[in-house]
Amino acid sequence: MLEELKEKVYKANLQLVEYGLVVLTWGNASEIDRDTGLVVIKPSGVPYNTMKPSDMVVMDLDGNKVEGDLNPSSDTPTHLELYRTYDDIGGIVHTHSTWACSWAQAGRDVLPYGTTHADFTNGAVPCARGLTKEEVSGEYELNTGKVIVEEFAKRGIKPSECPAVLIHRHGPFTWGKDSYKAVENALILEQVSKMAHRTELIASLSDNADIGIEDYLLDKHYQRKHGKNAYYGQK
Amino acid sequence: MLEELKEKVYKANLQLVEYGLVVLTWGNASEIDRDTGLVVIKPSGVPYNTMKPSDMVVMDLDGNKVEGDLNPSSDTPTHLELYRTYDDIGGIVHTHSTWACSWAQAGRDVLPYGTTHADFTNGAVPCARGLTKEEVSGEYELNTGKVIVEEFAKRGIKPSECPAVLIHRHGPFTWGKDSYKAVENALILEQVSKMAHRTELIASLSDNADIGIEDYLLDKHYQRKHGKNAYYGQK
Amino acid sequence: MLEELKEKVYKANLQLVEYGLVVLTWGNASEIDRDTGLVVIKPSGVPYNTMKPSDMVVMDLDGNKVEGDLNPSSDTPTHLELYRTYDDIGGIVHTHSTWACSWAQAGRDVLPYGTTHADFTNGAVPCARGLTKEEVSGEYELNTGKVIVEEFAKRGIKPSECPAVLIHRHGPFTWGKDSYKAVENALILEQVSKMAHRTELIASLSDNADIGIEDYLLDKHYQRKHGKNAYYGQK
Amino acid sequence: MLEELKEKVYKANLQLVEYGLVVLTWGNASEIDRDTGLVVIKPSGVPYNTMKPSDMVVMDLDGNKVEGDLNPSSDTPTHLELYRTYDDIGGIVHTHSTWACSWAQAGRDVLPYGTTHADFTNGAVPCARGLTKEEVSGEYELNTGKVIVEEFAKRGIKPSECPAVLIHRHGPFTWGKDSYKAVENALILEQVSKMAHRTELIASLSDNADIGIEDYLLDKHYQRKHGKNAYYGQK
Repeated sequence: MLEELKEKVYKANLQLVEYGLVVLTWGNASEIDRDTGLVVIKPSGVPYNTMKPSDMVVMDLDGNKVEGDLNPSSDTPTHLELYRTYDDIGGIVHTHSTWACSWAQAGRDVLPYGTTHADFTNGAVPCARGLTKEEVSGEYELNTGKVIVEEFAKRGIKPSECPAVLIHRHGPFTWGKDSYKAVENALILEQVSKMAHRTELIASLSDNADIGIEDYLLDKHYQRKHGKNAYYGQK
Repeated sequence: MLEELKEKVYKANLQLVEYGLVVLTWGNASEIDRDTGLVVIKPSGVPYNTMKPSDMVVMDLDGNKVEGDLNPSSDTPTHLELYRTYDDIGGIVHTHSTWACSWAQAGRDVLPYGTTHADFTNGAVPCARGLTKEEVSGEYELNTGKVIVEEFAKRGIKPSECPAVLIHRHGPFTWGKDSYKAVENALILEQVSKMAHRTELIASLSDNADIGIEDYLLDKHYQRKHGKNAYYGQK
Repeated sequence: MLEELKEKVYKANLQLVEYGLVVLTWGNASEIDRDTGLVVIKPSGVPYNTMKPSDMVVMDLDGNKVEGDLNPSSDTPTHLELYRTYDDIGGIVHTHSTWACSWAQAGRDVLPYGTTHADFTNGAVPCARGLTKEEVSGEYELNTGKVIVEEFAKRGIKPSECPAVLIHRHGPFTWGKDSYKAVENALILEQVSKMAHRTELIASLSDNADIGIEDYLLDKHYQRKHGKNAYYGQK
Repeated sequence: MLEELKEKVYKANLQLVEYGLVVLTWGNASEIDRDTGLVVIKPSGVPYNTMKPSDMVVMDLDGNKVEGDLNPSSDTPTHLELYRTYDDIGGIVHTHSTWACSWAQAGRDVLPYGTTHADFTNGAVPCARGLTKEEVSGEYELNTGKVIVEEFAKRGIKPSECPAVLIHRHGPFTWGKDSYKAVENALILEQVSKMAHRTELIASLSDNADIGIEDYLLDKHYQRKHGKNAYYGQK
C-alpha cells in the first residue's frame, strides 16, 4: 500500500540527517496522499541508519494505524491535526535543529531581517504560545497541533504563506506541498534562524546599527519568488 | 578475555570521533561486565586511527589491571568509582566536547530550557563543585569520581534519571546501560549544552523574552520517554 | 558557443557548494568573455546536483539571452551592470553565505580587524546603502548594481582593490579576474566576516581590549600580496 | 636532499587542511633537520590540492634557499628566527584558524579556563605586542619572529612549556618537537581558543559565574601530562 509514497517519505527522513538537521532519532517527516486521505510517517524512535522504506507507518486522518509493524512517530497527532485543518499542505517535518530550537526555547518569533527570510515568508516565523498545564496533561501532541492552528488564525497568517512555526520551548514544524518541500523548508528555517541571531548580535556590538527589513523589500522578495508574477526560477 | 566487550568498547570509542565529540586522544569510553565485575576501557593517549580492539585494557573494580599491554586511560579511577557506587550503570564516557566543556569551565549547571533537555533528564545537568587543593594533590582521578557521587547525593539526583555531570573547570562524564548508550548521552549533552547557550544569548537580545521550561512540560517530556507509561519509541 | 566557459562557470558554481557558501539554489556565479562581450551565468533556481554545463545561459551585456533553454539567474541584471561599469573584472559571484549576510542584514561594513582582512582588501568591505522604495519597485536587480557602483564611487574605492560588497539587508557580491577568483573571494569574505564578528565579541568581554588594525599594518599586508612589489606567492 | 623530511613536511601541511585549520593557501608548516641545520618549508601561495612533496623548499638558517624551484613561504624569516633562537623546537606551524585569529585580532591572551588548556600549557597563551611602524616597514617577517622571542623572554615563558603564541592583529604560530606535533598544537590551540571564548560568554550571561582555572588544578593537569612524573599516555 502506498509503496512509492513510503519510499519517498523514507528518503525525506534521510534528507533531514544529510542536511544536518537531525541527530539520533530526533525528527520526523510525513506526507499525505490526498486521494485516499492516508498519511505516511516515520516510525517512533527508530535509528535512521537501519530504517527501511517498509518501516514507514500508514495512518488515516482519524489516527488509526492502517498499515505498519511499528509505532508511528509520537508526534503523529500533531501532523494529523495540521493535515485535517490545512488542506493545501502535503508534507510535514519536525526537527530539533539547534538554531530554530534555540529561538523556540527563548520563546521568540524569528524576525525578518533580510531577503533570505523574505524569500521564505512575508513576515516573522511565529513562535506559538506555550501550552497550558491542562493542554500538556491532556492529549498533548494533538493540542500542539491545535495551538499551531490557533496561533495562525489569531495572527491572520495563511499556512501557504508561512510554511513554518516554532513550538514554544520545543522546536520547529515546517510544511510544504510534499515531504521534500517540507524538508527544504526545515533547512531554510534553520539558516534563517542562524542568520537572525547573528544579525542581532552583530548589530548589538555597534552604536549605529539598525535592523529589520523594510516592508517594501520584504514584499518585493516574497512576491518575486511566490507571487502570481513570480520570476524566480523556471516555469 | 571479554573479546566481544573489547570490540564493543573499541567501537564506542570510535563513535566519539564520528560524532565530533573527540579530537586527538581526548576522550574515553568504558563498559563493565557485571557478571565478572571487570571493566573494559580505552588505553591512555592512544590515537584513535591506529587503535585496535585488542588494545582495550581490562581492569577489576579495585583498579588492578587484569589484561592488556597498555596503560588504561588516566581517568580510569573516576570510571571505577562510578561503577562501584552506581550498580545500575553499565557504560561511561568522558569527552572534552566543546559546548559541555565551556559550561563546565564557566562552573554552571546546564539549565533545562526546552523539550530536548526534558527528553534527556528531568532537571539541570549539574556542574559538580570544584575539587579542593588537597583532593587534586591526592588521588585526583578517584576524588573526581567521589565528588560526582557527593554532588548527586547532595542534590538528591539519581544517576538513572540524570545520565550526565559536568566536572568543574574540566568537562563532561556521561553514562548509560552500556557504552553505546553512554556515547549517545554524550552527544545529547553536547546538543543540549549548545542550545542552552544559544537560548540565553537569543533571549538576552530581546526585552521581552523569558526562559526556563515549565515544570509540567519538563515532566511530561521526561515521562513520555522514560516514565513507566512511556510511549516514545518501540516496545 | 563558449563551451569551455560554460564548463568553467558550471564548475565555479559547484565550488560554492563545496566551500559551504551555498545551500539549495541560493547563489550564482558568472564570467564574461571580453572578446565577444558575452556573459555566461547560472540558470535561475536550478538545483546544483542536477545542473549540467549545458544549462548555463549566455547573455549579452544589454540583457538579451543569446543562448540557453533556461531562464538566467534573477540576479543577472546586477551582474551585467557590474560588467558594463567595471571593465577590469571578469567573474562575479553572489551568495547567501551566513556570516556575510548577517553583516549585510545588520547594515554594517565589515571592518578591517587583522591581517587576513588586509590580505584581501585595504579597507572596510562596504555595506552599500539600502535601495529606496522606488528603486525596489522599479528595475530592482539593475538598481542593485547601480547602488554598488554609486557606493564605490562615493567612497572612492576601486573595485580592483576591494573585490566585495554587501547589499543592505541582502548579502554579498564578490568579483575577480574570472569566476574562480570571484568564488575564492566569496570564501575569503565569509572567513573575514566570521572573524570580524568574533573579534568584536571577544573584545567586548574584556575591559582592556582595543580593536582595529593599524593603518601601516593594513597597508603592509595589502601591498605584500597585491602591490607592485608584492612578494607573496610565486611569479 | 632531505627527501623523507620533504614528504613529512608535505603531509604536515595537508593535515592543516584536514583538521579544518587552513583554507586556500593560508598556512604553512616547516621542520628543521638539526644535523644539517636545514629547514624544509611549504612554498608560498601554492594550492594544497596540487602541491607535491618535491615542491617543498629547503632553506638554511641564514635564509638562503638551498634547494627548490619555488619561493618559500613569505613567513619563512619568522620560522628561521624561532629555529635559531630555540634549539629545542623541531617543527613550526602558522595558520589563520578562525578562533585563534579572533583572539589575536582582539589583542588578547587566551586565558586558562580549564583542564583542556592546562593539558596544553601552564598559563595563558600570550598575544605578543604589536609591531611598530618601523618594524613593519623594515624586515617585517623577521621582526615578527623577534617580537615572539622578546615576548617570551619578557614574560619568562619557555617555548618548551608554551608551544604557541598569537601575533597581534594576525594569528597563531605553534611549534613542537617536529612538524606533526606543531600541527597537533595548532589544533589544540584552536580548540582551546574556541572554548575560552564560549566560557566567557556563558559566564557573562549569569550573575553568579566565576571563571579562571585554579592554580593547583592548572599545575596538576600540566604536570600529569608534561611533568617528569607524567602518567598520561604510554611510556
